[in-house]
Amino acid sequence: MPFPRFAALPAPPYYAVIFSSQRSGVDAAGYEAAANRMVELVQEQPGFLGFESARDAAGFGITVAYFESEAAIARWRDHAEHIVARRNGNNHWYEHFEQRVARVERAYGGVRRDHD
Amino acid sequence: MPFPRFAALPAPPYYAVIFSSQRSGVDAAGYEAAANRMVELVQEQPGFLGFESARDAAGFGITVAYFESEAAIARWRDHAEHIVARRNGNNHWYEHFEQRVARVERAYGGVRRDHD
Repeated sequence: MPFPRFAALPAPPYYAVIFSSQRSGVDAAGYEAAANRMVELVQEQPGFLGFESARDAAGFGITVAYFESEAAIARWRDHAEHIVARRNGNNHWYEHFEQRVARVERAYGGVRRDHD
Repeated sequence: MPFPRFAALPAPPYYAVIFSSQRSGVDAAGYEAAANRMVELVQEQPGFLGFESARDAAGFGITVAYFESEAAIARWRDHAEHIVARRNGNNHWYEHFEQRVARVERAYGGVRRDHD
């Protein structure tokens, strides 16, 4: 089942974890397996609302994960499997990353056009 | 001169405009020209801090633009050329989009490793 590209979210406020990263190119198979596992696991976390992710051909990517509270972000940060995955990201999979935590104040958009 | 992939930002708080979009595939040349012009123009805006952007091979992309204040976001929203570009995005270039405005509370990361 494909994960929808656009997150369906409740009315603000909620929280965004904005993660931008440059892949190292090292261990693509290990990275993909861990990324898929993290997608599976985060969806089981209380307070997880959704995520969106794009990575380009040069290996630069942005993932934005949405949570209902700072407490939910903290629980996910402290999840044992997530800690292991972050350590591998740190040691192998990423050349560089930036992470910002933000409180979403308002949202708009949605479908502008379904079809031409 | 290549635009750096990672935004260099001051200490929080500041504001993030998180824009996720699916390209329609229509008018690639017009889209690219407008996107390049918007990158040029936004950097001249008072209160603009930086941006990061990634789009994958399927045409799904995330751009996060950072501003020092809500007032700076409003000025950019009201810029005449930006209004025209958004209208073309609405009418031609995007199948769907979501936009969220968030207040960045904290940031970490930076260089984890420069080299293996």
